[in-house]
Amino acid sequence: MTMDDSLKGYRGSARAKLQEMDVRVWSDVEIKTRKGTFAGIILPRAETGDDQHIVLKQRTGYNLGLHVDSIVDIQEMGYKESRYAIPESEFPVDPEKPHVTLLGTGGTIASRLDYRTGAVIPAFTPGELYGAVPELADICNMKTRKLYGIFSENMGPEQWIATAKAIEVEIAAGADGVVIGHGTDTMHHTAAILSFMVQDPPIPIVIVGSQRSSDRPSSDAALNLRCATFTAAQGNIAEVMVCMFGPTSDQYNLLHRGTRVRKMHSSHRDTFRTIGDMPLGIATPEKVIALKKDAKPRRDDRNVAIDTAFEEKVAIVYYYPNMKPDIIEALVDNEYKGIVIAGTGLGHVNRPLFGVLKKAIDKGIAVYMTVQTLWGYVQMYVYDTGRDLLDLGVVPGENLLPEVAYMKLCWVLGHTTEPEEVKRMMLTPVADEITDGEPHNGYIILQGGLPEVEEYVKNNLR
Amino acid sequence: MTMDDSLKGYRGSARAKLQEMDVRVWSDVEIKTRKGTFAGIILPRAETGDDQHIVLKQRTGYNLGLHVDSIVDIQEMGYKESRYAIPESEFPVDPEKPHVTLLGTGGTIASRLDYRTGAVIPAFTPGELYGAVPELADICNMKTRKLYGIFSENMGPEQWIATAKAIEVEIAAGADGVVIGHGTDTMHHTAAILSFMVQDPPIPIVIVGSQRSSDRPSSDAALNLRCATFTAAQGNIAEVMVCMFGPTSDQYNLLHRGTRVRKMHSSHRDTFRTIGDMPLGIATPEKVIALKKDAKPRRDDRNVAIDTAFEEKVAIVYYYPNMKPDIIEALVDNEYKGIVIAGTGLGHVNRPLFGVLKKAIDKGIAVYMTVQTLWGYVQMYVYDTGRDLLDLGVVPGENLLPEVAYMKLCWVLGHTTEPEEVKRMMLTPVADEITDGEPHNGYIILQGGLPEVEEYVKNNLR
Repeated sequence: MTMDDSLKGYRGSARAKLQEMDVRVWSDVEIKTRKGTFAGIILPRAETGDDQHIVLKQRTGYNLGLHVDSIVDIQEMGYKESRYAIPESEFPVDPEKPHVTLLGTGGTIASRLDYRTGAVIPAFTPGELYGAVPELADICNMKTRKLYGIFSENMGPEQWIATAKAIEVEIAAGADGVVIGHGTDTMHHTAAILSFMVQDPPIPIVIVGSQRSSDRPSSDAALNLRCATFTAAQGNIAEVMVCMFGPTSDQYNLLHRGTRVRKMHSSHRDTFRTIGDMPLGIATPEKVIALKKDAKPRRDDRNVAIDTAFEEKVAIVYYYPNMKPDIIEALVDNEYKGIVIAGTGLGHVNRPLFGVLKKAIDKGIAVYMTVQTLWGYVQMYVYDTGRDLLDLGVVPGENLLPEVAYMKLCWVLGHTTEPEEVKRMMLTPVADEITDGEPHNGYIILQGGLPEVEEYVKNNLR
Repeated sequence: MTMDDSLKGYRGSARAKLQEMDVRVWSDVEIKTRKGTFAGIILPRAETGDDQHIVLKQRTGYNLGLHVDSIVDIQEMGYKESRYAIPESEFPVDPEKPHVTLLGTGGTIASRLDYRTGAVIPAFTPGELYGAVPELADICNMKTRKLYGIFSENMGPEQWIATAKAIEVEIAAGADGVVIGHGTDTMHHTAAILSFMVQDPPIPIVIVGSQRSSDRPSSDAALNLRCATFTAAQGNIAEVMVCMFGPTSDQYNLLHRGTRVRKMHSSHRDTFRTIGDMPLGIATPEKVIALKKDAKPRRDDRNVAIDTAFEEKVAIVYYYPNMKPDIIEALVDNEYKGIVIAGTGLGHVNRPLFGVLKKAIDKGIAVYMTVQTLWGYVQMYVYDTGRDLLDLGVVPGENLLPEVAYMKLCWVLGHTTEPEEVKRMMLTPVADEITDGEPHNGYIILQGGLPEVEEYVKNNLR
């Protein structure tokens, strides 16, 4: 092993610190820092990582980055080289099975160590995926295509448009379903914008990721990937959706409609929830059960409307009491074209903002109201505050989720800035982003295991 | 009846429209507008209402304000005068019963019609409350004190400080409990700031309101008021809390700790939810059951630490993908002292914001990270983005809810702007706003009726 390998990926002061302390990658260490002592294995880093942190795989499975300046001492307790090469075998071809394309965007799906630490290259080629999750070959033939590789919090219109166009290509090429591997931070934002950019696809478009990397015993990576792949290959729901871990441990994944889903826990695996509706369906690696009568079925044609219009000058203003007009003032000054307010209650902000909102609207900025309660509708006719905001020209956004309203306004303003046409487009549902009503059971979370789900379907959908 | 009475509260063009159409208050009408036809009873208005809207009580019970300019025609179908005077009787005095003070802030509690339409003066004096909800006299002796009367979305430090000082006076005067009537839009913000301004009260401080006015069959007003009054008078939890309708229709109310509560539905009655924890307790008009072992018990002393420090130059920045630096740039330019970011995932924003965040921190602005998932903790050591933000000086806010972090940062910066002291105060819990862990069942909603609650308490708290 060369010196390079034993400090794999470390540069600058991080590399110097390891050398000074006479430890290396895969050393089992105790690192004493000014903030406490941490035990674990020193992980390799990617070439793209910074040169200021030493990354530790802790006993809990979590990775921890320690800044070199905070490190007082490193004690080597042992050495535990981990195998992080993925056993690779050729993905079997079966002409009888459906064809799925996996588009890569940079999220963790299947890897031996967490992708975002840069410690390993994640499983991505069909051969690697087959090596890591051989059950995939029971479901379909798979091909993979890496679109780009960034953390999902850094995604923007360039990536969203590239993804929509890639989906167009895959549909035209005859794919039976598309799986998109995606980081979880902004998975719901991407699901929303793709719902507008990829309209009425004939096949399932399934966005998937994992909350815990596949080197952790509790990883959701393999199950999520199997459920998403089955949904894309053999499921009968042709919509843009998110397929992530359900609330019942490992019994099933939930399928969330792209316009009604939100990340609701920073670390749990069952973080994605359908808001204000029932989930679109559930998925296991062997079946998909629709939970809504209006789930759109798969079609044999290759028709899809790809529409990648996008206006970047749109902001979400999240209202809080005692908010001052200066924030909206800055948006007006900076030539924003659209503002989505997440208001309190039925859609309210305080009176001191009325003046600047009028100024914004007079200047032609599209201002839409949503509710920060997340569940429920904007209703601005009920109270004086709402009526006054209506009079100013603030448009009630029905039950658009704030993030979905933001994405839709970016998309609509990419087509037109004419206020009445913007309003018509904003309030005409494209992909069920506005619904006629929210079911009472859309507020609570679907509880129970598969038997309860099947009972629900029997009582409600047949 | 004089002309004044038959058009009660209507001025200007609204009054002229009613006269033109030959209808009056309590007329049962069909109003044809450019947006459709609406049926209902014309309600009286308060002197403080605007002169542009006619307010209709629809068959559904909802009030609707129609702008006079949109009205094409009004057809009178009948006349249905409603009794809206509240039967008033003297609130009985019983020296054996505890003493509760009800502080009024402007929210709907008990009234014959919705307070915010201005149609009636809500029940507020002890005699009116006794007339509207006579069961209150079984619970306590009551006195009332109106602090101010504004919609809760317009509340700010002036009102919060006045409320904290009023609580101080009532505690010193010997009250056994304080109930605060409050609009629901920003009830959780007020609960959070009062948790910091009123520390370790010896008696319950119970914030209550209603989602539906007491003239609607499904109103939660009377039950909420009875549960809150019982909690204040006889309950054994001496904390700042929210007492609102529970998720099981009318079986019980939930008591939410002031720092862990959020409005989660724009219109449902069971909108308030404890986030990331079990609710503090449940309340009925006859009993209070604590659901947490750490609920602070009532004390006999009159000690309370009132601390009304407040810095107004604080903002919440709610991150969305493709956010540009200009919004934070404006906060820096406008001399803000504190920024609470609601980031994605474990506490992330995109790379283009790093420069302006560094500029803000270099200028001495306190920047704290929270998670917009609401549930779960900030964990910025896990990924490169988080580590980079830590290096810039962004402070992880543990599991502070974004709104609570905002209120706490306003309060802390009222004491000091010295970064290390701000950080020490921010991260030292005052009223359980930061907890050591979030229970698994703190993500889901406590289901079931009273028997299930009692089963839970038996299994978990004894």
